[in-house]
Amino acid sequence: MAKELTSRSENYSQWYNDLVVKADLAENSAVRGCMVIKPYGYAIWEKMQAELDRMFKETGHVNAYFPLFIPKSFFSKEADHVEGFAKECAVVTHYRLKNNPDGAGVVVDPEAKLEEELIVRPTSETIIWSTYKNWIQSYRDLPILCNQWANVVRWEMRTRLFLRTAEFLWQEGHTAHATREEALEETERMVNVYAEFAEKYMAVPVVKGAKSANERFAGALETYCIEAMMQDGKALQAGTSHFLGQNFAKAFDVRFATREGIEDYVWATSWGVSTRLMGALIMAHSDDNGLVLPPKLAPYQVVIVPIYKQMEQLDAISEKVKEITAKLKARGISVKFDNNDTKKPGWKFAEYELKGVPVRIAIGPRDLENGTGEVARRDTLTKEVVALDRIDEYILNLLEDIQTNIFNKALARRTELTTKVDSYDEFKEVLKNKGGFVLAHWDGTSETEQRIKEETKATIRCIPFDQVPEEGTCIYSGKPSKGRVLFAIAY
Amino acid sequence: MAKELTSRSENYSQWYNDLVVKADLAENSAVRGCMVIKPYGYAIWEKMQAELDRMFKETGHVNAYFPLFIPKSFFSKEADHVEGFAKECAVVTHYRLKNNPDGAGVVVDPEAKLEEELIVRPTSETIIWSTYKNWIQSYRDLPILCNQWANVVRWEMRTRLFLRTAEFLWQEGHTAHATREEALEETERMVNVYAEFAEKYMAVPVVKGAKSANERFAGALETYCIEAMMQDGKALQAGTSHFLGQNFAKAFDVRFATREGIEDYVWATSWGVSTRLMGALIMAHSDDNGLVLPPKLAPYQVVIVPIYKQMEQLDAISEKVKEITAKLKARGISVKFDNNDTKKPGWKFAEYELKGVPVRIAIGPRDLENGTGEVARRDTLTKEVVALDRIDEYILNLLEDIQTNIFNKALARRTELTTKVDSYDEFKEVLKNKGGFVLAHWDGTSETEQRIKEETKATIRCIPFDQVPEEGTCIYSGKPSKGRVLFAIAY
Repeated sequence: MAKELTSRSENYSQWYNDLVVKADLAENSAVRGCMVIKPYGYAIWEKMQAELDRMFKETGHVNAYFPLFIPKSFFSKEADHVEGFAKECAVVTHYRLKNNPDGAGVVVDPEAKLEEELIVRPTSETIIWSTYKNWIQSYRDLPILCNQWANVVRWEMRTRLFLRTAEFLWQEGHTAHATREEALEETERMVNVYAEFAEKYMAVPVVKGAKSANERFAGALETYCIEAMMQDGKALQAGTSHFLGQNFAKAFDVRFATREGIEDYVWATSWGVSTRLMGALIMAHSDDNGLVLPPKLAPYQVVIVPIYKQMEQLDAISEKVKEITAKLKARGISVKFDNNDTKKPGWKFAEYELKGVPVRIAIGPRDLENGTGEVARRDTLTKEVVALDRIDEYILNLLEDIQTNIFNKALARRTELTTKVDSYDEFKEVLKNKGGFVLAHWDGTSETEQRIKEETKATIRCIPFDQVPEEGTCIYSGKPSKGRVLFAIAY
Repeated sequence: MAKELTSRSENYSQWYNDLVVKADLAENSAVRGCMVIKPYGYAIWEKMQAELDRMFKETGHVNAYFPLFIPKSFFSKEADHVEGFAKECAVVTHYRLKNNPDGAGVVVDPEAKLEEELIVRPTSETIIWSTYKNWIQSYRDLPILCNQWANVVRWEMRTRLFLRTAEFLWQEGHTAHATREEALEETERMVNVYAEFAEKYMAVPVVKGAKSANERFAGALETYCIEAMMQDGKALQAGTSHFLGQNFAKAFDVRFATREGIEDYVWATSWGVSTRLMGALIMAHSDDNGLVLPPKLAPYQVVIVPIYKQMEQLDAISEKVKEITAKLKARGISVKFDNNDTKKPGWKFAEYELKGVPVRIAIGPRDLENGTGEVARRDTLTKEVVALDRIDEYILNLLEDIQTNIFNKALARRTELTTKVDSYDEFKEVLKNKGGFVLAHWDGTSETEQRIKEETKATIRCIPFDQVPEEGTCIYSGKPSKGRVLFAIAY
């Protein structure tokens, strides 16, 4: 079969690449590091966008749009920020091509050189804070709670579909506040929104926490994140929310008159999730047969496959399907009827398994006689014969079941892949033989973190919000520690 | 008053610029030619997107995403296309910055020069057809009906907010078909979708037609368009749908096996509308008091302003408003209650007039006693006292009325601004003193069209689909003509 996947046990990384391409989610483009998101993959992203956008609006945010380009000089205004992004950005230097005087094709017109180079945004703090400067005079203009859905470019050398691409799609929230407390509250609010989205919609359990200084966003005083565990024991950072303090306000001179009439710099946050979530979604649930999608994000939740030999049988089945489809749609369930006559049912079964459609209903002539259908669920690969007269209620419950089941499966796997260790030897042994999250005591210094990273590739994924206060000693330095932090090798 | 607009009669162009900025729709950014779309403007664009996206999906299209960058060599593959876009594109030449060795800031790292320059997409035919090559082998793979929501860049020298900006947002549909007929049908289907959107949602009447050869898209065999008339007598092209023949398939060698087993090149269309529609929407309906929005695209359709002196009065009004809001929302009407205590009602009235909110309801203590509210409609600036108990039904009808009324007003204006002429003198006189659409006979040659453009700035906006067959002579050359075409000076 052309579409067979490499198995996870054989080569997890190849399994992922195969799956992304064969399930028609995305592919590499002719442009190094840039991907094409194919319609089926994009449909999942659209579902994610719709839910996130709703959640942002419910928490008081509005959308806006800021320029793709950032003048080079803006970049230098916040020292850590430029340090973090300067080495991986696409630079526009000219604004015109001309016919090649030496022959065919076109060349860059040397006379059309920009006075100041423009950077294709890797993130928009600088251009947005240069704009906010004009929007903010007084505390009455605050808070500003803007989000932007956009494409950004970071010139990654090693790219992987969805997980790390030169161009990716994301949303970036940028908020401005009158007080430190309010900005911190916002930072926390948004990491909670991300966690709720990941768990409720993606069915991916996440650990919420704060990044260590080493792993913070370039320009942030505090970075909160959600961390997910993949099936191969590697962690994946699925969303971040940054408390930027007054750094960008100072860099762009954004001051305001407080309620008390004093002049102060504005407080900032930024927060984002990207098409990387697609990678997390794929890796969290899928199996050797293909994608497993949570019903809440599946482009269609149910596929109906007719089983027939003669066209009259197909006609009779189609009549019944029309009825079923109407009932399912009335319940808000999305349905695809695949009556393509050039493909066999076996091919279709494999195709929709590969594409992770949560529920398949097969209906043949005998089913019509009995008023039944064969319902197969993707997550467990089990089948059941079900009466068609109350199929809508049955499927509605089944979809909820599937959503819960794949979350629970992922949670059980994460629990299984989380290990407490009390020595550096044990730490290394777990990373080597088991992988997953490792909870260990750490002395709180960047030096120790850096050494552990160099020696084991493991990084501190976060200092969990639900960290249990516990006296201990750092596994590396032996110095005192007050609680365990979450280590892992990460994507 | 700080927010007063220049009047249309005084300076139409200034009126437009004032309005865009003062109604918080958009503003110029720090990057030449790039705009910031502010939350209120973006909310209108989101409404447009939602309706268009629904219409695209209802006509069988799916969304996908293709790279922002296009390798320079792709551009040269279609001769007309490169000719049309090479002179106005942003070129990425480097992928890294480094610290300035001579001092502060960052400079482009000369060692990070790209082997082949990348063009920031001005439109995506080339990158998409290079992708489609891998998707299409047989007629079974056709049609492909993809749309993309994206940003594009065209390095315009003279820019105006929404109407002409270096970066703009748009959607671009790119479809692939097995036959010429099917591609032509698609081209027509999509111009019809655009016309329906413009008239039903934007309340802007449009003329559908075909472009003359001079005005076609670079690389198209046929360009269909919708043309709208603005209040100042200038036309605005609001959407285009291109029949690309086999040009891009040939440029990118995209062949397929037909049903008959013969190899042929694939047939193509592309079609798009952009944030330029915002410009059309603003200019079509607005007046000297500000924006006038069609209810179907207004971010909120109703604003409720409380009139009170004491806080107890506000409390009582707020109670009533809660009830009204619930009733309106149940009818699908979007409502904002502006209970901001730092602004006076007069200020609020002016503000929401400026922002084009279709309906304003003012409620004071006496209204509470009488069970009434003062309802003001933005389009006619008239007011009426209305009983609150059936306010939901009243407003529902009123919103429909307003939608119809502003369409009819725009239609009457367009009729008034459409003139048939039979001589070149008359043509010039109408353009000079009246403006608008001019229906005139034309000999069908590019030379004549070009001369008329040079002498009068008027271009052929389209050859209307509903052109009446009529023998005549070209106003410029005196040669025979079989029907009138639509001329105008355009944005």
